[in-house]
Amino acid sequence: MWDTLAPIGRAASGGYSRFGWTPVDRVLREWFASEAQARGLDLVTDRAGNNWAWWGSPSRDRPGVVVGSHLDSVPDGGAFDGPLGVVSAFCAVDLLRSRAFQPSRPVGVACFSDEEGARFGVACAGSRLVTGALPADRGLALTDGDGVSMAAAMRSAGVDPTAVGRDDEALRLVDAFIELHVEQGRGLVDLDRPIAVGSSILPHGRWRLDLAGEANHAGTTRLEDRRDPMLDLAAVVTAARSAAKARGCVATVGKVTVVPNGVNAIPSAVTAWLDARGDSARAVAADVGQAAGTAPVEESYTPDIRFEPTLVTRLSRLLGDAPVLGTAAGHDAGILAAAGVPAAMLFVRNPTGVSHSPAEHAEREDCLAGVEALAAVIAELAA
Amino acid sequence: MWDTLAPIGRAASGGYSRFGWTPVDRVLREWFASEAQARGLDLVTDRAGNNWAWWGSPSRDRPGVVVGSHLDSVPDGGAFDGPLGVVSAFCAVDLLRSRAFQPSRPVGVACFSDEEGARFGVACAGSRLVTGALPADRGLALTDGDGVSMAAAMRSAGVDPTAVGRDDEALRLVDAFIELHVEQGRGLVDLDRPIAVGSSILPHGRWRLDLAGEANHAGTTRLEDRRDPMLDLAAVVTAARSAAKARGCVATVGKVTVVPNGVNAIPSAVTAWLDARGDSARAVAADVGQAAGTAPVEESYTPDIRFEPTLVTRLSRLLGDAPVLGTAAGHDAGILAAAGVPAAMLFVRNPTGVSHSPAEHAEREDCLAGVEALAAVIAELAA
Repeated sequence: MWDTLAPIGRAASGGYSRFGWTPVDRVLREWFASEAQARGLDLVTDRAGNNWAWWGSPSRDRPGVVVGSHLDSVPDGGAFDGPLGVVSAFCAVDLLRSRAFQPSRPVGVACFSDEEGARFGVACAGSRLVTGALPADRGLALTDGDGVSMAAAMRSAGVDPTAVGRDDEALRLVDAFIELHVEQGRGLVDLDRPIAVGSSILPHGRWRLDLAGEANHAGTTRLEDRRDPMLDLAAVVTAARSAAKARGCVATVGKVTVVPNGVNAIPSAVTAWLDARGDSARAVAADVGQAAGTAPVEESYTPDIRFEPTLVTRLSRLLGDAPVLGTAAGHDAGILAAAGVPAAMLFVRNPTGVSHSPAEHAEREDCLAGVEALAAVIAELAA
Repeated sequence: MWDTLAPIGRAASGGYSRFGWTPVDRVLREWFASEAQARGLDLVTDRAGNNWAWWGSPSRDRPGVVVGSHLDSVPDGGAFDGPLGVVSAFCAVDLLRSRAFQPSRPVGVACFSDEEGARFGVACAGSRLVTGALPADRGLALTDGDGVSMAAAMRSAGVDPTAVGRDDEALRLVDAFIELHVEQGRGLVDLDRPIAVGSSILPHGRWRLDLAGEANHAGTTRLEDRRDPMLDLAAVVTAARSAAKARGCVATVGKVTVVPNGVNAIPSAVTAWLDARGDSARAVAADVGQAAGTAPVEESYTPDIRFEPTLVTRLSRLLGDAPVLGTAAGHDAGILAAAGVPAAMLFVRNPTGVSHSPAEHAEREDCLAGVEALAAVIAELAA
């Protein structure tokens, strides 16, 4: 499976640019459909455009155990964040079948749309739309850097945007959702273990800072006559780091746009995006806004999420007392958990801890341990 | 003329994006050729791709008086920076002919290529190439943001890049070059005068700062484990302002690129461009490099240029003791002056002082005064 998946959306750098509702995304969806078809799984697309491949027929009275993740990436992202969960899900189905396992309830492989939010700015857009955490009208009106709306992008990918909205029919078919993911940190390296069970997701959010200036000539405008928004950007970046340090959070300014972005022109506008995570993430955003003299626009915010403690304990025991770790990264499993779906996560060791980068990696041996763990979880929950 | 020129390369914002050797630039060249043809002027393209429209036949023994400027723009630039000088030059020829003026020597209207350097990063590329201030091999190897070289861009615009180089034949035909330009500042507003004569151009340069980091996840990477080049950008911006203030210069960070530029990814690299002008511009660049911990790459540098004092005094007297002003903006007239061509400038009042912006403006009355002044200068120098 990796052989056919690996070339899709890969740049010369080795990094991936797989953004939601693009032609590359369409190829990823075709890849998912063909893997489902090869296994005789029934492909269902929910009202938010997420794909579900079912082994057996779930119903409201007989909901299924679902495993999976997403296939999209951040700009110049790695090969594992997302795809490892989808590939491992298909492998776990193969493994269980090779052992002639007969599930007592349906088993699903899910692939959520636009998890990274790289194009429209809202992470976990697919799971937020299907649970209603992101209202359809707000989601569809989001635009990408070229001004294309999510509605238009979905339409050009062959999905009807008028149907988008909270999809209770789809959610009622899920008895539990387990998302396997490469670890984004060095917790398992430090513990010398291949697999962990996720316990919680820290509060996290994204804020946009619109810094206004006045375009003018870089040579002939006196320093005291300038309204240069690049100076405000410097204040934003500096305040983000100091506020995060002071409040025990992490904060990042990873995306910036400059207008007109000419060497010899004072910018008329700079836009900066702040990503802050931790219990005081909102306070960090407020501090940064104060330093920049502008109110941050909250593009998304997800409060603290704890996966169901009984499920977490059960999975940890099942997997030989696997360590239980929290994370500061957002995931579709967290969105579903917040919407009342029993959910949990498995993390696969990441030797460097690096993610959202072409250097993101997991060893083959650990990936195979992940598939075994996922198969064990399915066998336990669908025994 | 403004009616046919105005729509070329104009964006919805009202600003212009007219970059060298693009399809838009080709349309501007066609416009210049048709204006020359309509007046029966002989169009000559020099080895660097600059256009010269001659009234009369210049020779080495009978060089001409040349007026003109450029037609390209910065990103989202104004309508006057460059085009005012070219349009006024054609108008001055028309005015002199309507008065049945018979020049004693040829009169030329010049349009220099790629003056703003918006695409390839080197300002006044056309005049630098024709004078040899920019060696042909270095200029042709410059690449734009898409990796297209200047050589390839020239070729696709129908100009042979193999001929590019110092063109003594073309320069020997110029007895004097007078560039009319909209003022980039409020000097004439303060003096309540419509026209000034340019005396000098301050030293100015452009430096590139390559700030290296390590791509990683914005949520899961501890602050102390980060190598975040956005913090270095903040240091660059802050140092540029404070060094400029301390050293009596101006300095601007107007262009920034971020890789991968994703909200939830610590950047792997940020590139910032510094524009600094004044007697200590190089010292400012060094200060900024020290603050960022990286050596600035000098992309261009032009030392102090004084236009020929006798010519400046003569023109000021001719124009009713017009004020004599220096500028911190670079111009093709400065490049020619540095190469030994007698050159000077006329500035037309700018009511707000704003330039390199869609808000750049000159009143119609002042533009007409500029044409009268330019005609008077031609009549004086080609009497």
